Amino acid sequence: MGELSLLEQFRAGAPGHPWLAVGPGQDCAILRWPSGRDMAFKIDQLVEGTHFTLTGPEAASPARIGWKAMAKASSDIAAAGFWPVAATVAVNLRKGTDERLALELYSGLAGCCKHYAFALAGGDLSVSEQGLALSVSLLGEGPQNGAWLRSGAQPGDILFCTGSLGGSRARKHLDFLPRLEEARQIRNLIPTGVHACIDITDGLSRDLRHICAESRCGAAIYAEQIPLSPDTGAFSTGKNARDPLAQALGDGEDFELLLAVEPAAAEILAREWHMETKLTCIGNIQEDAKGCLLIAHNGSSRPLPDIGYEHLL
Amino acid sequence: MGELSLLEQFRAGAPGHPWLAVGPGQDCAILRWPSGRDMAFKIDQLVEGTHFTLTGPEAASPARIGWKAMAKASSDIAAAGFWPVAATVAVNLRKGTDERLALELYSGLAGCCKHYAFALAGGDLSVSEQGLALSVSLLGEGPQNGAWLRSGAQPGDILFCTGSLGGSRARKHLDFLPRLEEARQIRNLIPTGVHACIDITDGLSRDLRHICAESRCGAAIYAEQIPLSPDTGAFSTGKNARDPLAQALGDGEDFELLLAVEPAAAEILAREWHMETKLTCIGNIQEDAKGCLLIAHNGSSRPLPDIGYEHLL
Repeated sequence: MGELSLLEQFRAGAPGHPWLAVGPGQDCAILRWPSGRDMAFKIDQLVEGTHFTLTGPEAASPARIGWKAMAKASSDIAAAGFWPVAATVAVNLRKGTDERLALELYSGLAGCCKHYAFALAGGDLSVSEQGLALSVSLLGEGPQNGAWLRSGAQPGDILFCTGSLGGSRARKHLDFLPRLEEARQIRNLIPTGVHACIDITDGLSRDLRHICAESRCGAAIYAEQIPLSPDTGAFSTGKNARDPLAQALGDGEDFELLLAVEPAAAEILAREWHMETKLTCIGNIQEDAKGCLLIAHNGSSRPLPDIGYEHLL
Repeated sequence: MGELSLLEQFRAGAPGHPWLAVGPGQDCAILRWPSGRDMAFKIDQLVEGTHFTLTGPEAASPARIGWKAMAKASSDIAAAGFWPVAATVAVNLRKGTDERLALELYSGLAGCCKHYAFALAGGDLSVSEQGLALSVSLLGEGPQNGAWLRSGAQPGDILFCTGSLGGSRARKHLDFLPRLEEARQIRNLIPTGVHACIDITDGLSRDLRHICAESRCGAAIYAEQIPLSPDTGAFSTGKNARDPLAQALGDGEDFELLLAVEPAAAEILAREWHMETKLTCIGNIQEDAKGCLLIAHNGSSRPLPDIGYEHLL
C-alpha cells in the first residue's frame, strides 16, 4: 500500500468550504478569510491506549475514533461560540495497519466535517511502530471581539449547561454531537449575553473552576438542578458504583457547554429556547471570596468537591 | 509533575503576534486576520522512531527535535511564499518522561517561533505508553491569490533551487533554517514571477516530479549545475557509499526551495540576488511529453532517475 493511493482517496472525498481557495495536495491549504470575522485556532489529539482502544471490551471502531477526534476539536470551537471552517489532520498509523482501518478512520473524520459543512483542508500521514494517534487542527470563525472565553463571568451571571452530564464513558464520549448548533442558537438569541463559556471535558466541577479561576469569581450550583444523564445508571450499581451526581460533577468528556449568562439575557434565553437539546439553569456566579459551592435540596451548602479528570504526566 | 505547572511554564514564555487576539489558556486561540491577505494552513508531525530517535548514535536532543518540528511546517509555508503567523502544537510524551525533556522540546519549538516572529498560540499535551510525537499546525499569511503552488509551472520557466542538496542526514535535517527569508526576498524581487514552488523534502528528483505532475509539464535539469552540499562527503565513501549527485537527487529533508520562474523574472532574480543563501539555476520546464530529463556535462540526456524518499505504509 503506497501513501499516494491512500492519499488520493482521501483527497477525492475531502469536504470543502467556500473560503477554502486551495485544498489538499499542495504544500499548504490556502484560505481566504473575510474581513470583520475573527478566527478560532485549536489543536487536539487522540492517542491509542490513552484516549481510546482498538481492542478489548472498550474497543471503538476506527470510524467512531475519527468522528471523536474531529468532534472534540469542534467542541472547543463551539465553546468559543464560533463555527468551524477548515480542519487539517495528522494521522500516525501503526506499521502494518490495514488500509481499511485508515479509510474508516477517514470516513469518521470527514463525516464530522460534512455534518457541520466545514473543509478537510489537508493532512499528514505517517507510519510508525507506535500505536494509532490523531491530531486535529481546526479553524473556526465568528464575529470580531465576539469569542466566548473562560474569563468574563461576573457575579450575578446565571449558569446554564446544555444536555445532560455524567456516564459519558458508556457511549457518548465517542458519538457525541459537538454543541455547535446550540452555540449558534444561543448567539442568535442573545448576541452579547454570554459572558463566559467552556466545554465540559474535565467534569462540571473542574470546568466550573476553570471559569471561576479565569474570571476571578466564585459560583453556586444547585445539586438537584444538575441534569443527570441516563447513562449514569450504567455506573451507579455494582462494585465500583458511584452515585449519579458524583458522575455528573466528576466525569470527563461530557462535551456539553457550560455558560455564564448576563441575567437579563438569561431570561430571554430560558424563555426562547426551543431546541431539542436541553438547556438547564444550574446556578449562578458569585463573588470570588465565596469560592465554588454546591447547594443541596434543603438549602445547605458545601464546597463543590474538587473532582474531575486529572491531566497528570 | 502536574500538567498545569508545565502548561503554565509554556504559556508564560509563549511567543505572540500582533494578529493574535487571545493566546494560550482558553479553549481556542483567537486570531484577527486583516482583509486582503490569504492564509496558508498546514499540519505536520514528527514521530519517535520514524522521524527521529532520542537514543543511540543518531540521537537528537529534544531542543533540536522541537526546532525541526516547527521548522518543517514553516518550510511548507515558505514554499507557498507566505510567512508564518501562528502555530499550535500537540505533544504526546512517553509516560515517565522527565519534565526537563518537555521544557527543552518546548524551547526548540518556541525558539523557531521567536526566530521568525510568529506566535505559539496554543497546544495540547498528553501522555501515553507510546513514544514521543509532535504535531505542528501552522498558519501563514500572504497576498490574495499570491500563494505559490506546485501547479502553474510553464514550458520555458527557469528552475532555481536555494542552498545546496544532499547529505542532509549528517546534520542539516535537524538544524536547518526554513527558507522563509529567501522566499520573502524572491517575492520582493519578482512579485508575480514565481509560477510554481515546492520545498525539497523527498529529494530533488521526486519533488521536481511533483511540480511536473501538478503543472502537467516536463523538465530538464543539468547535472553539473546542481549545488551539492559538502555534507554529501559524509556518505560518499565507505561501504554504503553513494555518489554526491545521487544523494542530491534522492536524499530527502533538504528543506530547500525548488522554484519555476518566468524567464524575464528569472533574469531579474539572477541579477539582483544578494543573499548569503545560494540561489542556483539548475534547468528549465519543458513540454509534458518530454518527461523529466537529466542532462550530463557532454550534453547527453537520460530520464531523471525516479529516486527519493518513499512514503510507504
